[in-house]
Amino acid sequence: MKREDVLMEALPYIQQFHGRTIVIKLGGHAMVDQVVLENAIRDAVLLHYVGIRVVLVHGGGPEITEKMKQMGKESVFVGGLRVTDAETLEIAQMVLVGKINNGIVSLIAKCGARGIGLSGNDGNLIIARKMDPQKVKIGDVEQEVDLGHVGEIEWVDPSILHTLLDNRYIPVIAPIAIDRSGGSLNINADTAAGDIAVAVKAYKLINMTDVDGVMDATRTKVYRKLSIDQANNLLKSGAIGEGMVPKVTSVINGVENGVAFAHIINGNIEHNLLLELFTRDGVGTMITVK
Amino acid sequence: MKREDVLMEALPYIQQFHGRTIVIKLGGHAMVDQVVLENAIRDAVLLHYVGIRVVLVHGGGPEITEKMKQMGKESVFVGGLRVTDAETLEIAQMVLVGKINNGIVSLIAKCGARGIGLSGNDGNLIIARKMDPQKVKIGDVEQEVDLGHVGEIEWVDPSILHTLLDNRYIPVIAPIAIDRSGGSLNINADTAAGDIAVAVKAYKLINMTDVDGVMDATRTKVYRKLSIDQANNLLKSGAIGEGMVPKVTSVINGVENGVAFAHIINGNIEHNLLLELFTRDGVGTMITVK
Amino acid sequence: MKREDVLMEALPYIQQFHGRTIVIKLGGHAMVDQVVLENAIRDAVLLHYVGIRVVLVHGGGPEITEKMKQMGKESVFVGGLRVTDAETLEIAQMVLVGKINNGIVSLIAKCGARGIGLSGNDGNLIIARKMDPQKVKIGDVEQEVDLGHVGEIEWVDPSILHTLLDNRYIPVIAPIAIDRSGGSLNINADTAAGDIAVAVKAYKLINMTDVDGVMDATRTKVYRKLSIDQANNLLKSGAIGEGMVPKVTSVINGVENGVAFAHIINGNIEHNLLLELFTRDGVGTMITVK
Amino acid sequence: MKREDVLMEALPYIQQFHGRTIVIKLGGHAMVDQVVLENAIRDAVLLHYVGIRVVLVHGGGPEITEKMKQMGKESVFVGGLRVTDAETLEIAQMVLVGKINNGIVSLIAKCGARGIGLSGNDGNLIIARKMDPQKVKIGDVEQEVDLGHVGEIEWVDPSILHTLLDNRYIPVIAPIAIDRSGGSLNINADTAAGDIAVAVKAYKLINMTDVDGVMDATRTKVYRKLSIDQANNLLKSGAIGEGMVPKVTSVINGVENGVAFAHIINGNIEHNLLLELFTRDGVGTMITVK
Amino acid sequence: MKREDVLMEALPYIQQFHGRTIVIKLGGHAMVDQVVLENAIRDAVLLHYVGIRVVLVHGGGPEITEKMKQMGKESVFVGGLRVTDAETLEIAQMVLVGKINNGIVSLIAKCGARGIGLSGNDGNLIIARKMDPQKVKIGDVEQEVDLGHVGEIEWVDPSILHTLLDNRYIPVIAPIAIDRSGGSLNINADTAAGDIAVAVKAYKLINMTDVDGVMDATRTKVYRKLSIDQANNLLKSGAIGEGMVPKVTSVINGVENGVAFAHIINGNIEHNLLLELFTRDGVGTMITVK
Amino acid sequence: MKREDVLMEALPYIQQFHGRTIVIKLGGHAMVDQVVLENAIRDAVLLHYVGIRVVLVHGGGPEITEKMKQMGKESVFVGGLRVTDAETLEIAQMVLVGKINNGIVSLIAKCGARGIGLSGNDGNLIIARKMDPQKVKIGDVEQEVDLGHVGEIEWVDPSILHTLLDNRYIPVIAPIAIDRSGGSLNINADTAAGDIAVAVKAYKLINMTDVDGVMDATRTKVYRKLSIDQANNLLKSGAIGEGMVPKVTSVINGVENGVAFAHIINGNIEHNLLLELFTRDGVGTMITVK
Repeated sequence: MKREDVLMEALPYIQQFHGRTIVIKLGGHAMVDQVVLENAIRDAVLLHYVGIRVVLVHGGGPEITEKMKQMGKESVFVGGLRVTDAETLEIAQMVLVGKINNGIVSLIAKCGARGIGLSGNDGNLIIARKMDPQKVKIGDVEQEVDLGHVGEIEWVDPSILHTLLDNRYIPVIAPIAIDRSGGSLNINADTAAGDIAVAVKAYKLINMTDVDGVMDATRTKVYRKLSIDQANNLLKSGAIGEGMVPKVTSVINGVENGVAFAHIINGNIEHNLLLELFTRDGVGTMITVK
Repeated sequence: MKREDVLMEALPYIQQFHGRTIVIKLGGHAMVDQVVLENAIRDAVLLHYVGIRVVLVHGGGPEITEKMKQMGKESVFVGGLRVTDAETLEIAQMVLVGKINNGIVSLIAKCGARGIGLSGNDGNLIIARKMDPQKVKIGDVEQEVDLGHVGEIEWVDPSILHTLLDNRYIPVIAPIAIDRSGGSLNINADTAAGDIAVAVKAYKLINMTDVDGVMDATRTKVYRKLSIDQANNLLKSGAIGEGMVPKVTSVINGVENGVAFAHIINGNIEHNLLLELFTRDGVGTMITVK
Repeated sequence: MKREDVLMEALPYIQQFHGRTIVIKLGGHAMVDQVVLENAIRDAVLLHYVGIRVVLVHGGGPEITEKMKQMGKESVFVGGLRVTDAETLEIAQMVLVGKINNGIVSLIAKCGARGIGLSGNDGNLIIARKMDPQKVKIGDVEQEVDLGHVGEIEWVDPSILHTLLDNRYIPVIAPIAIDRSGGSLNINADTAAGDIAVAVKAYKLINMTDVDGVMDATRTKVYRKLSIDQANNLLKSGAIGEGMVPKVTSVINGVENGVAFAHIINGNIEHNLLLELFTRDGVGTMITVK
Repeated sequence: MKREDVLMEALPYIQQFHGRTIVIKLGGHAMVDQVVLENAIRDAVLLHYVGIRVVLVHGGGPEITEKMKQMGKESVFVGGLRVTDAETLEIAQMVLVGKINNGIVSLIAKCGARGIGLSGNDGNLIIARKMDPQKVKIGDVEQEVDLGHVGEIEWVDPSILHTLLDNRYIPVIAPIAIDRSGGSLNINADTAAGDIAVAVKAYKLINMTDVDGVMDATRTKVYRKLSIDQANNLLKSGAIGEGMVPKVTSVINGVENGVAFAHIINGNIEHNLLLELFTRDGVGTMITVK
Repeated sequence: MKREDVLMEALPYIQQFHGRTIVIKLGGHAMVDQVVLENAIRDAVLLHYVGIRVVLVHGGGPEITEKMKQMGKESVFVGGLRVTDAETLEIAQMVLVGKINNGIVSLIAKCGARGIGLSGNDGNLIIARKMDPQKVKIGDVEQEVDLGHVGEIEWVDPSILHTLLDNRYIPVIAPIAIDRSGGSLNINADTAAGDIAVAVKAYKLINMTDVDGVMDATRTKVYRKLSIDQANNLLKSGAIGEGMVPKVTSVINGVENGVAFAHIINGNIEHNLLLELFTRDGVGTMITVK
Repeated sequence: MKREDVLMEALPYIQQFHGRTIVIKLGGHAMVDQVVLENAIRDAVLLHYVGIRVVLVHGGGPEITEKMKQMGKESVFVGGLRVTDAETLEIAQMVLVGKINNGIVSLIAKCGARGIGLSGNDGNLIIARKMDPQKVKIGDVEQEVDLGHVGEIEWVDPSILHTLLDNRYIPVIAPIAIDRSGGSLNINADTAAGDIAVAVKAYKLINMTDVDGVMDATRTKVYRKLSIDQANNLLKSGAIGEGMVPKVTSVINGVENGVAFAHIINGNIEHNLLLELFTRDGVGTMITVK
């Protein structure tokens, strides 16, 4: 492919995205592999430089588990959700906010832009309430389990994001929320990314993960483009792998509430972010209203 | 070359040029070959779309000659300059403003942007005074020849350009000036482009012509990059072909008065404008302070 | 009449018109008689100076016919409309845009203000579509005649006019439109003036012509003031001379769509423009809603 | 004292401070006693509410030591400064940013205002370079000791603070800086508060600590008011206790570089912040140019 | 009571009132006792300084009576209203505008702020019409009495108040209105204060008078807080003293039309204005919607 | 003279004065003859309507004398200046502010514009200090006489004038000043007009009086145009009548300090204000730098 053809293809996209807001969820390997993370940040900063308003949301489960082990504390999961007692919450906050979030902001500085690390209590960004006890099958018996300091998002106040984006900062958000009495709650990062994208009226929501996109039941084919209906049907049919369910649910939620385009792409392959945004065919799965 | 590499190379340039003003001189074949012109306009509109403030300046000598012939009037040149009596001036204005300029504006509309055609009397854009009689060798005798309604630029008032660019219009300028008493004067388009670039504080001045750039005396090698000193030396050494002299003089003048980068490129090759701007090596000659 | 009485009478009008937009159609002798034109422009510039936002629209039929004759091409009219083949269109554009329009802008400069020449393709100002073939009686037989590149206005986008007026330029508009595919079309200047006045939300539309206003069937009395109903009745009754019909139709259209006052005045008498605007009785015909 | 007298005394101060910036350093007990901290935050939020632009800077040494002990790692101090290897730095960041800073932001939310937690890498707020090895007497021998990831502030960029204050957020700053290559460095919180106060052109710098102000050598009398010269003399005379030295040095630095008033007050006594600001006599030590 | 407690109590009120408009009616002793007046102005200027938009409205009946006596003219009252012939009106205007109003503005200057004296004709602030003849019992006979130049307010145009308040001036308003033909009318100051408070969308209306608030029929107890219904009932029951009736009516009218809080306080006791606004219990009667 | 000629002559002046500030001193008969005053106000409002920023300054000596007589108090003049004891000052203020000033504002309302009455204490507009005792010949003996509350202008703060003019109000100023301790002082109205014109950077200062302009010693010829030097020489030569001296001194002062043009015209002749401003020859005396 000739250089001029790549440019001719890319320039209209660059124009189209200029001044729009794109929320990028960083997850998977990027949270444990510094090289993968740095590549993603470098691409995100390029997007920032061509006039896109970039918001980053990150997870960090494996690092929390790791750090807890280091501190001699065992991680307990029920139905895929971490049981979060006060001590776990403190460790989670220290890892998510003091280590991962802070580290991403430093990488942004290294790439020549200016990031601002946030968690849900900064500017009352994410208000949540304690999640109701979950019904989980333990052995053969269904039980109600209280997950502790785990939250369900009630409301996202995007004011601080607008303030920062208007002043050309890249906000970096850790998945911690604040409750009505000022306490902290652990929240799911995929869900947070979707709710933030809706609140900030994002044009695109991009979930960077470890697989190439939404796959069919045989795990051999990646869907290039799905409508909300198709994506919902795939969810109902059980064709979507367990780990992918919250990601697909989150982007569907985004698109149903005003985000124009959602994408799920493999963040482990260098520059996938640029190729998804600036080429006609893209590299992952794009989900739109229809 | 991989797509992502082209993008990685181009994006920083796109960022760097965003919001900057670039003056493009359209000349040569583009003035007579509709396909070449349309390609140039399409690329210029792409630049406009990625946030560059684009100003177009055009010539039109061959079309004037053609139209004069059609109207049974002979063109007279002295020392490369057209002798311009009142009738010739009227024809020149009709061709430059009523045909070529108007046609470029229509092409811009066709490419999806909005152009505004201007000549030097619009908003008192270009003030000139009648050129002094030129000393020319006719046969063996040096004679003073009055060129008629031919002007030398005194002052460019860029206000209307700022007004239009701030409102996202592409100004298209014909090489006609106004004198202090409201009369019209024919001016050299290359010179006009240079003076306009200086007045509008352009970041770049690009002269699109029919050759690949500034060549050495053997006409085999194109200089990729010249400092002002080098370019001036080439001019003095006589190595630069006659047709290229006003172009090189104009871009040197631009760079000496504040334009950061000047380029001479071959406009006949599709997308040369994009390649010159968005690749590291470019395709023509770039002239800078040093 | 005492000076102070003229002033006492004029000052409230000056106040009333301050900051309002007035569209002036220049036609008739002014298009061929340089002195008449210059007088009209001088008055228009005075209006500009007392804070009125002035828009000029001009015609140019006779000059086109003249220039075509000069180029050995015959003008063909069907039902009062010029049959416009490609060559005729090119000549019309060169005359209207390159000569008349450009000349008016130079006169404005001479009077100390700043004009900007526009035709319909500048900033997509006037979008038109090719006129349907017209039914015309040729001899005794009614025939459908294709008029060629003649347009009917579909839409006027006043953005560029607001941009220019806000920055204290006087826009001067030639009666050429652009079609949806970027081609040019010849349009009627009276109609254009009316549609532009509506689009730009003008306070007044003034048609300067060669007669003293709308006259009764005997051609002896000028109506000072007509309501839309009265004007429409005159049109229907056939009392209005053929040449005046498009002018009256255009101003009625203007008033029906929001222009507060329309005037038809004799542009050949010096300062009629000032007297119509700044005296109680005026000098021509004023048409209002009722 | 009558209510109205308190009001009469306080209102002029309230007016005087309106719209001014005040940097408050939180330290001592407030970092370990949640009640003391909460009282300080409540008063700071009141200041915010009467129109003062409040910036908070906090320390956290004791908590870091505590957390390190918990993780089985010993704290090493040389000449009063913590030797900071990579692991120590990581723990310090997690405690300062993920726990203390985050906790203060939550308390602000609880008091009804909106805080934003920052460390030095957010928006490139604090740029530092690695501190040179320190000459320390160990036993009888003076040795050069490399303190590891400990920084000396080079430059404070207050842009993000202005952005946040203009939008009515309370910035809360942890004493972590970023170096030129994107790495993190531990910095002294008192020094940071002084440099931030200078960079943000603060009107006042208030250091809240565990003692009642600057005391004389007998530790019985608190100086109410000191000029820079007096404070410098006290420093030289050795009359100032070791723990107080960096605090006094920092506020002198602030006042010498444009901060109008610096205060050292006892943060352990409820509402001392209000009494220092809104009463004629105050409660601690005020340091001014003279 | 401790200083810090007074501050803790006052600061939230100061914040709450910041940027809000408060209309203060000055009456009673303040109009004849320079010390009482000066105390009131000093407190009002303090309110201005903590960011409250202060509007002052004053009366002046006793001074008019006094000045009339001095000029050998008797004051005639019918049903509590001054019969105002042309000469009385002239004297009233001279006293209210040229003496009292002017004097208050000078006191404001003395306290360090900038006042602007207004009467109803300034900027067409208060438009009134002549009051209908009043039915009054004279002796045993009910008669219609024409009160002369006494007006009933029709309309308050708050534009000039906004202009002045936005530029940090304190408007001082005399109870004189203008009628539709440009004549002056005497109006009741309490009523004027209420109508101005409504027009300027005041947050509070404070009537400073000679008694401690609204009292019960026994004149021993002051009501601290009344709803509109309660106040209306008191009015109907006749429990409210004659002099207090127009004051209570005016504040009820204010609250019914959008003023959030109305207060009646004793202006003769120093600093009552501050205590009413900045303490929880206040010192007079507060009237709210319910 | 033909209407169009009057218009052609007037329109450039109207344009020239648009947005400029003109200070008009009203004096002489206008202060006692309601018809003359009303004519002057009507013309001033017309100026306001064509975009001029109009400031009115008035005198009122005869009315004060009249009112004092009415109140049984004799007026005492020393060297042409009124001896002003406390009682006289009070009467002067009541007449100037409460009657004349207030009356002019009502006339402005009647003419359809909005005036705001001011005296020197409004917005600290005119700061003065008590005039030093004057040396006056009483009989044959030169004595020092203390004139009482008579002031010399120290400083004019034009802020309130800009605020009002920017919001399209006409300020009307009475010749009362405020001293540094908040007391009032009587000042000369001609002097005040000149100082205000300088402070507000007026383009013109117009003194409307009872004579046709500055006359020569024979009192038969009016000077049409004087330079400052010529005017000063006339003053020195004693050719200027006593009553005219303060007026000429005031306008010279204005022109020497930045007012472009000063005029002295006869206010008793209707529309002289318009004729002076909008005709080439004018009707009174114009004084300029040279």
